[in-house]
Amino acid sequence: MIDINWKPNKNSSKALYRQIVDYIISEIARGNFAIGTKIPSQRKLAEIFEVNRSTIVEALDELKSRGLIEGNKGGGTTIINNTWSLLSSKPELNWKNYIEGSIHKPNLRTIQMVNRLEYTENIIRLGTGEPGPDLFPRHMMNKVLNRCLNRITSLGYLEAKGLLELRRVISEYMRKYGIQVPPSSILIVSGALQALQLISLSLLPPGSKILVEDPSYLKSLHIFQSLGMNLTGLKMDGEGIILEEIQKNGGKNADKMLYTIPTFHNPTGIVMSENRRIKILKYCGDLRIPIVEDDVYRELWIEKSPPMPLKSRDKNGNVLYLGSISKCLAPGFRIGWIVGPESVIERLADIKMQTDYGSSSISQMVLMEWISSGLYEEHLKEFRRKLKFRRDKTIEILKDNFKDIASWNIPQGGFYIWLKLNSNISINKLFQESIKEKILINPGSMYSFSNNQNLRISYSYALMDQMEMGLKKLSHIIRKLEKEQNSC
Amino acid sequence: MIDINWKPNKNSSKALYRQIVDYIISEIARGNFAIGTKIPSQRKLAEIFEVNRSTIVEALDELKSRGLIEGNKGGGTTIINNTWSLLSSKPELNWKNYIEGSIHKPNLRTIQMVNRLEYTENIIRLGTGEPGPDLFPRHMMNKVLNRCLNRITSLGYLEAKGLLELRRVISEYMRKYGIQVPPSSILIVSGALQALQLISLSLLPPGSKILVEDPSYLKSLHIFQSLGMNLTGLKMDGEGIILEEIQKNGGKNADKMLYTIPTFHNPTGIVMSENRRIKILKYCGDLRIPIVEDDVYRELWIEKSPPMPLKSRDKNGNVLYLGSISKCLAPGFRIGWIVGPESVIERLADIKMQTDYGSSSISQMVLMEWISSGLYEEHLKEFRRKLKFRRDKTIEILKDNFKDIASWNIPQGGFYIWLKLNSNISINKLFQESIKEKILINPGSMYSFSNNQNLRISYSYALMDQMEMGLKKLSHIIRKLEKEQNSC
Repeated sequence: MIDINWKPNKNSSKALYRQIVDYIISEIARGNFAIGTKIPSQRKLAEIFEVNRSTIVEALDELKSRGLIEGNKGGGTTIINNTWSLLSSKPELNWKNYIEGSIHKPNLRTIQMVNRLEYTENIIRLGTGEPGPDLFPRHMMNKVLNRCLNRITSLGYLEAKGLLELRRVISEYMRKYGIQVPPSSILIVSGALQALQLISLSLLPPGSKILVEDPSYLKSLHIFQSLGMNLTGLKMDGEGIILEEIQKNGGKNADKMLYTIPTFHNPTGIVMSENRRIKILKYCGDLRIPIVEDDVYRELWIEKSPPMPLKSRDKNGNVLYLGSISKCLAPGFRIGWIVGPESVIERLADIKMQTDYGSSSISQMVLMEWISSGLYEEHLKEFRRKLKFRRDKTIEILKDNFKDIASWNIPQGGFYIWLKLNSNISINKLFQESIKEKILINPGSMYSFSNNQNLRISYSYALMDQMEMGLKKLSHIIRKLEKEQNSC
Repeated sequence: MIDINWKPNKNSSKALYRQIVDYIISEIARGNFAIGTKIPSQRKLAEIFEVNRSTIVEALDELKSRGLIEGNKGGGTTIINNTWSLLSSKPELNWKNYIEGSIHKPNLRTIQMVNRLEYTENIIRLGTGEPGPDLFPRHMMNKVLNRCLNRITSLGYLEAKGLLELRRVISEYMRKYGIQVPPSSILIVSGALQALQLISLSLLPPGSKILVEDPSYLKSLHIFQSLGMNLTGLKMDGEGIILEEIQKNGGKNADKMLYTIPTFHNPTGIVMSENRRIKILKYCGDLRIPIVEDDVYRELWIEKSPPMPLKSRDKNGNVLYLGSISKCLAPGFRIGWIVGPESVIERLADIKMQTDYGSSSISQMVLMEWISSGLYEEHLKEFRRKLKFRRDKTIEILKDNFKDIASWNIPQGGFYIWLKLNSNISINKLFQESIKEKILINPGSMYSFSNNQNLRISYSYALMDQMEMGLKKLSHIIRKLEKEQNSC
């Protein structure tokens, strides 16, 4: 057992739990607390340090999350320090600190919980934004793999922008969208998230302001915040971002950028109207606000194809366009692409090479065969048909179970229904109660700049009978919480 | 044509060319120099600004490299600005500045040239550190793809540490090396470069000192320097890093880490002796200097397998171990792995998820089949046989052509011969003259902390008849330069 002759200073401005954490770290660093040493019980520690037990719990939680101590089955706690966890426990630690410092904490906690709970067995995921495993076109994948036989003749490093044949195929494919660019203006990346990371690292000075829709998928990521950027939310109406919102937040003389998902917006499903697209493009062009257009849902229209991308009207290289097959085919390829002015693409490619030496050549070759064989387009037709079924079914379930307790949009494509509860029950409580019933929801606060009563429902992931069961149970929980609230 | 009423201030402490660059950038930003505008000739600009023509050349070079102007065939220069290149031209731009600020410039220029010239057609690459295309086991790759048919049933996001089945297979595989770790202590990454990036981002405070062998492959990367770390070179002897070198540079009270390639070191081919391994591990353990052991060449032994990894004797989680198949099979998979204490692996996995949502699932599945089918081990046997042939042949060519002008080691594995020229001809001149003859060499200065007369020769890439032709020509060029020098 450890011998402790130290107490926190109650007059210090440093929180008590923090003093205790720092003390224990320094003792480990000095070698006084050896690995494998048992530390006293919480009750005992509270006595020794003369603090409340809750302070001890907080301190131990932090030490645990840093990998310095470990609870064991018998209830004791043991020092499991190693040199690495000590290194990373230095207070100035960059990345981690950025994250902890810059994100609204409870929000972050929900996001982390959602990410972790997604891998719980038998949980029904009502909000997961990726195609469910049953939607993967296995049969076509086999055809594609067969085409690859004898064609993969070597797997060396590729040029910095990615496999030329794939960029050719994508360049050709994007003419459909009114985007005419040579393969040299395309950079293959490992998905849209990496694209955003490269843009932050190589194009945006720290402290830049990123204008985004409120709510926005981007709010649920750490990527920009981690790199010291500030997100500003722009209000939307049924046609997308409200122009005045950019005017209000986009004055001159500041480093800023607009990030938008104009087509089948995540999480609201909104499609920006053609008229609004034209206005926003012109306005941002005049004010020299560069635009990142995230267009990964474009192919997932249900009734009719959406307006052309902003990029198709971009004459001055003001728009960086992000494409990906993660939503339309499968995220496991980890392949997306950035389209932009060649000089910008070259800079991004340079930074990408320094980061990971390029994306998987196998993924790129297989995807090239998917698109060039025509199987990708064939798959999309089938996928749209299945999405329509899923959307209609989900709306039907909502009508049957949520009519009196919520309102929602009917998306024209993409994956998302932005469900708004009528009552003001605690969404946090709803989240917790749902978990107990093995139902995982994505609270709207993950995506929003303020608290709200929304949930993101995605009809892309769960099987429809699961969706039905899950939504039914969810409506019961909501009703129960409403009742509890009213009886208070 | 542009109208200019401005001159640089000759009394300013700011360099003239820099003033001109900043002036032109600000004019573009204000919209005074529109896209497509032709700018005056160099001669004319020198007149207008009242500076030397060389100052103009320097300024235009910088504007060109930033993607703000472009030369056209007719000899004129045109503004090609766009909002993105302006954003990234801000002086405080992070990443790019780090790189430019922290790396020895001529060194950087050679590295960039080598990277670019590798993609020149018909160039003979004498120093490229990857398996040549002819060494790729196409036939076995087909067998593996056949095994994958019907097994790729979905391609969703994977858990943060990577495909569990692959981690199991790697965990099993590494017992061969005396490393016994559960799959939960393994993180799949997109190659060793990404591993180093994750370690820098999440474990090392900026300003940390990285101790490395001198010379070291790491010196040719930007990764640590870009993130504000300082590399310190440690002298080696025939048994690897000299212990006293760590003692000299590794005092207490500083954030430092040792990065080492103890087995078939890049670029010298040295294998650290067993005795040295034991000593270094103990010494670093006592001083709490964490170690990154880069072990990607281990399987490429020729006569006998090398001593066990440092990691196999690591009792305290002091070593992070890097493995990869890039050198043994093909870099295009973009798959490597980190082995370390579970708490550290979890932190790294968390940052990886925020960076790219994980590595390609296809690559991971295909690799899993490679290893679990036994085809990988079969391939390694064949590969070692071929490497022995290549090494012997290359040594023979050196004996025939370099006996009187250079000395070299005979590597016991890996790819590299560290050729040392006897004379002190300019290696830069040698590089330039070689390029004219379509021969690409990797000068030792790319890897070293000081100038030297070395070249890294790699017998892994070029075909052997190319190698013969290339080395013969190289010896002629060296002799010619020696003669020129003697006649001066």
